[in-house]
Amino acid sequence: MVSASSSTSSGVLDGFKLVRILDQDPKHKSANLLGEFASTANDGSASIDQAVLILEKTHFSEQFYRQLEDPNRAPTSDGERTIKAPKLDAEAAVLDGTERDAVFAAVSNLGQNDVYTWLLAWLQRSASDPGDADVKMTLIRPATQTHIDKYSAQRRVMVYETPEMYARKVQPWIASFPPSRIQWVYNILEHKKEADSILFEHPDTESGFIIVPDLKWDQKTTSSLYIQAIVHNRELTSLRDLTKDHIGMLQNIKDQASRVAFERYGLAGVQEGKPDGNVRCFLHYHPSYYHLHVHILAASFTSHPGAVVGQAHLLDDVMDLLRLGVDMKQRTLGYSLGTNSKLWSVLYPDGNPST
Amino acid sequence: MVSASSSTSSGVLDGFKLVRILDQDPKHKSANLLGEFASTANDGSASIDQAVLILEKTHFSEQFYRQLEDPNRAPTSDGERTIKAPKLDAEAAVLDGTERDAVFAAVSNLGQNDVYTWLLAWLQRSASDPGDADVKMTLIRPATQTHIDKYSAQRRVMVYETPEMYARKVQPWIASFPPSRIQWVYNILEHKKEADSILFEHPDTESGFIIVPDLKWDQKTTSSLYIQAIVHNRELTSLRDLTKDHIGMLQNIKDQASRVAFERYGLAGVQEGKPDGNVRCFLHYHPSYYHLHVHILAASFTSHPGAVVGQAHLLDDVMDLLRLGVDMKQRTLGYSLGTNSKLWSVLYPDGNPST
Repeated sequence: MVSASSSTSSGVLDGFKLVRILDQDPKHKSANLLGEFASTANDGSASIDQAVLILEKTHFSEQFYRQLEDPNRAPTSDGERTIKAPKLDAEAAVLDGTERDAVFAAVSNLGQNDVYTWLLAWLQRSASDPGDADVKMTLIRPATQTHIDKYSAQRRVMVYETPEMYARKVQPWIASFPPSRIQWVYNILEHKKEADSILFEHPDTESGFIIVPDLKWDQKTTSSLYIQAIVHNRELTSLRDLTKDHIGMLQNIKDQASRVAFERYGLAGVQEGKPDGNVRCFLHYHPSYYHLHVHILAASFTSHPGAVVGQAHLLDDVMDLLRLGVDMKQRTLGYSLGTNSKLWSVLYPDGNPST
Repeated sequence: MVSASSSTSSGVLDGFKLVRILDQDPKHKSANLLGEFASTANDGSASIDQAVLILEKTHFSEQFYRQLEDPNRAPTSDGERTIKAPKLDAEAAVLDGTERDAVFAAVSNLGQNDVYTWLLAWLQRSASDPGDADVKMTLIRPATQTHIDKYSAQRRVMVYETPEMYARKVQPWIASFPPSRIQWVYNILEHKKEADSILFEHPDTESGFIIVPDLKWDQKTTSSLYIQAIVHNRELTSLRDLTKDHIGMLQNIKDQASRVAFERYGLAGVQEGKPDGNVRCFLHYHPSYYHLHVHILAASFTSHPGAVVGQAHLLDDVMDLLRLGVDMKQRTLGYSLGTNSKLWSVLYPDGNPST
C-alpha cells in the first residue's frame, strides 16, 4: 500500500497529447499509450517530447470492501434519486464539447527515476473524500523507439517448429550465443547475485538446481505465487535437450518446489496441512533465456499469460512423455511468436513461412 | 456500448451489507461478494435476503482516449495544484469515520431478469460531467447456495490422472452419463438450435464437425476471437479417445477454423492477406462436456484462463504426439481440479489422494 505521505499533487500529464494506442488489454483493464508533449524553449523554438503512458485500472481496495460491510453507510447519490442519465456515448460527448473537461480530477506523483515517473490518478473526485485512486500509471518521458516497440502490441502468430527446423536453424542459432549472454544466470548459480533470495539448492552439477522467487512476484500473495527453478547443468538449453536421464532431476524440482511453496509461503495443496498439488510447474518453449529453468505457479493462478498452452509445457506432461519414449528433438512444437522477434527472422529469413 | 436512455438511477444497493469476499482476481480487477439485505415486513417481522454482487472495473473507453487526444483540455485538478494528500490507508479511513460516506456516488440500473439485476456504478462523480462508469455489476438477489458456490473461489489443486485411474474410474463415470446430458450438443449438431450461428459445417458423421462462435465471445472483437468446433462423431468423448485415425479430422478442423476466422472476422495471420497462424487451437482435458470439441482462440489472446497449460492441450501437439505413436489412453495427464467438483469425488472417493 502506498503511504499518503509519499504523494504529492502533480500536473505532470498536462499537455500530454495521445497519438496512438500502442496496446491494450480489456481483460486486465490496461493500456499503453503513445503521446507527445509540445514545449517551447527560451529561444522560442518549439520541440516535441515523445512519451509512453502505461495505464492500469486499480483493483478494489480493502477500504472499499470495508465500506460495504457497513449497511448504514450513506445511501447512493446521498439521497438524491433523480440523476442525469450518464453519458456513455463518445460521439455525443464530443458533439457537446464535454471532451474539454479534465481527464483526471487529480494526479498524484509517487516517485521518479530517470525517464520513469509513477503516478496515481483519480478520474472523478469529491472534495470531501478523495477515496481510492482509479488508475495506476507509469509515464516514460522522453520515450525512445525501443520503449515504443516494447510497449506496442506485437502481431503474434502460431508457428510450428518441426524437428528439421530445430536441427537446421534453431539449434545452431542457440549454440552461437556468447556465454556472456547468460552471465547473469551463472552469477545466480555461483551465489554472486541474489544469494539472499535462494529458497532451495541442490548443489550437484549434473542433477542440481536452485529455486528463487520470480522477480514479477511480490513474495507475499500466496494465490499468485511464482517461483523459478534453475538447473546447475549448463548443457541443457531447453526442453528439446531433455531425455529419460533427466526425469529424476525434474521430479526432484517439482517435489522441492511444492515443499518450498508450502513451508516458506504457506501454500497448501489438497489438504490444509500438506503441499501435494499446490503448484503448477511448466517449461517454456521457447524460453526467454536458453539455460533450462522451470516456472512454478500457484495451482489456482490460471490467468497468468505465461502459463498459456502453446508456450507452456506442463513439467509432468514432459516427464510422462519422456517415460513413454518420446524424443523431444523429434517433436513438432507449436508456439506463438511475434513477427518482429529475433527468432522469427531465424526461422523465416525471408520474412514469412510460405516463401 | 450501453445507451444512455436505458439507464435509470437506482438505490438498489442501499442496505447491502458485505458478509464475505467469495472470490477476487486482482489481474482482472473483479470480485464476487456475498452480502445480505435486512428488511422488515408489514407485520414487523425482520428477514434477511442473501445476495451475490459481482463487480468488475470497466476498461478505458473510447471517450477517455478521445479526451487525451486534445492537449488543450482542462488541466488536471482544474488549475488547483494544492490538493489534500489522498487517503490510501484503510485503517486511517476507518478511524476518522470516512467509511460512512457513500461507496457509490451513483448507480445506474441497466436491466433486470428474474433474480439478476445489471448495474453500472460511479465511485466518484462530478456534478457537471458524469463521465464513464467505474464499475460493472451484477446483483443476484435473492441468492441460493448454488449461486454462492458458483461464485466462490474453489481451492484448485493439480492432480495427475494415470492410465489406471482413467480406465478404472474416469471412463466408467463418463460412460454412465445419460445421453440427455448433452442433448443440447446434439440439438446444435442436428440444426435444432443455434442453426443461424453455424460458421462452417462438414456433415460427415465420422470425420465431420461444425464450427460455431463461443457464447463468451462478443462476435466482434477480433483480438479476442473465440470459436468452437464440435465433431459429429458421437463416440469421441475426449482427447483420450483420439487415435492416428483422427489426425485427418483434426487437421481439417484447424484449417477450416483458421479460414473461418480470417474470412468471416478478418483475423489475419502472418501476412495481412492470409490466415496462416491466426488461431490457437486446443482441447481441454477435462472438458466441460464429454463430446469432443476444439477451442479456437485468436493467436494473440494469451490471457484467456481457458488456455492455461494443465487443462489446455494444443491441437497440433496432440496431432504430433499421435503421429509419433503416443497412445492417449496410456498418458498420465495433469490438470487442476476444484476439490468440490464431481470429478474430484470420482477420482478420490475418500476425499483425498493420499488415502
